[in-house]
Amino acid sequence: MNTLTAIQTRSSYRGKYDPTPVPREHLQQLLEAGVAAPSGCNKQTTSFIAVDDPDLMHRLSELSGSPVGQTAPAMILVLTRRILAYGGRTYFMQDYAAAIENILLAAVSLGYESCWVEGQVTDEDNTGRKMADALGVPEEYALVCFLPIGKAAEPTKRPRKKPFSERAWFNGFQKSE
Amino acid sequence: MNTLTAIQTRSSYRGKYDPTPVPREHLQQLLEAGVAAPSGCNKQTTSFIAVDDPDLMHRLSELSGSPVGQTAPAMILVLTRRILAYGGRTYFMQDYAAAIENILLAAVSLGYESCWVEGQVTDEDNTGRKMADALGVPEEYALVCFLPIGKAAEPTKRPRKKPFSERAWFNGFQKSE
Repeated sequence: MNTLTAIQTRSSYRGKYDPTPVPREHLQQLLEAGVAAPSGCNKQTTSFIAVDDPDLMHRLSELSGSPVGQTAPAMILVLTRRILAYGGRTYFMQDYAAAIENILLAAVSLGYESCWVEGQVTDEDNTGRKMADALGVPEEYALVCFLPIGKAAEPTKRPRKKPFSERAWFNGFQKSE
Repeated sequence: MNTLTAIQTRSSYRGKYDPTPVPREHLQQLLEAGVAAPSGCNKQTTSFIAVDDPDLMHRLSELSGSPVGQTAPAMILVLTRRILAYGGRTYFMQDYAAAIENILLAAVSLGYESCWVEGQVTDEDNTGRKMADALGVPEEYALVCFLPIGKAAEPTKRPRKKPFSERAWFNGFQKSE
């Protein structure tokens, strides 16, 4: 799928998934999309685990407690490390967000739905760590997000967005020329 | 350009740019790519200003002090507001990073080079605010990044990346099955 079409087509899918497994070849392409994302000072702070083992999927879905993606046949989990880039600063958050967006666009391009599930993972009840433990992830990595992957079994919806003119301008704030 | 190709082709370009102006139609498509990005709880915290006015380009380049993109015929500036999503949390940083990645991929897809310039803008010398003032941007918005846009006048380079197997796995940490 063309890049501009994928960007405009992507939306967060919270419906039921078709149980058909996602071919490993496609999961590999999604992981490669994540790895290809830019990172501040090329520190490559983000790592990824694709899961398609049904027992592990079930366990992770129980641990997440999120209604989103419970029926998905696969998911990608996003891990980060707070590696310093320069001057005491780290760009780990920008790094993983860019990688997530790459994976979401690659998923659309391959005909899959997904949803960026972060808040429920990083909230104070330690859900991310519990999911990380189930995957054998060491403490130096934080699990910050999961992305269910699969074909939609229900219609997709697009949230209402503000008009373009309220968010994008030319040559000055709120200017159109 | 196909989405997966754009994702794998994108790299940060720090060379000289061809001075040929970027058609407004293309700048519009880049802005639309930014606006289409997901945002936490759909709060749409990110805004954008495309600049192609030569005098304004010159002034912004002087203010940025960055050697990157000084010869670019256009740029996109990324603005953010720390709008709360829920439970006292804001996802403004993830929101703008996803929007930046959308714009970078759209730029590649349309044949342009760019570079995510954030550190020099948000460092402690207040560069982002100076650039924002030159554009009439109110204090409630922070200018956090600029993206030069134009055709490359020099060869592009790709940074060395860690092997895939050090960053992406299947069904468990550092597992490949």
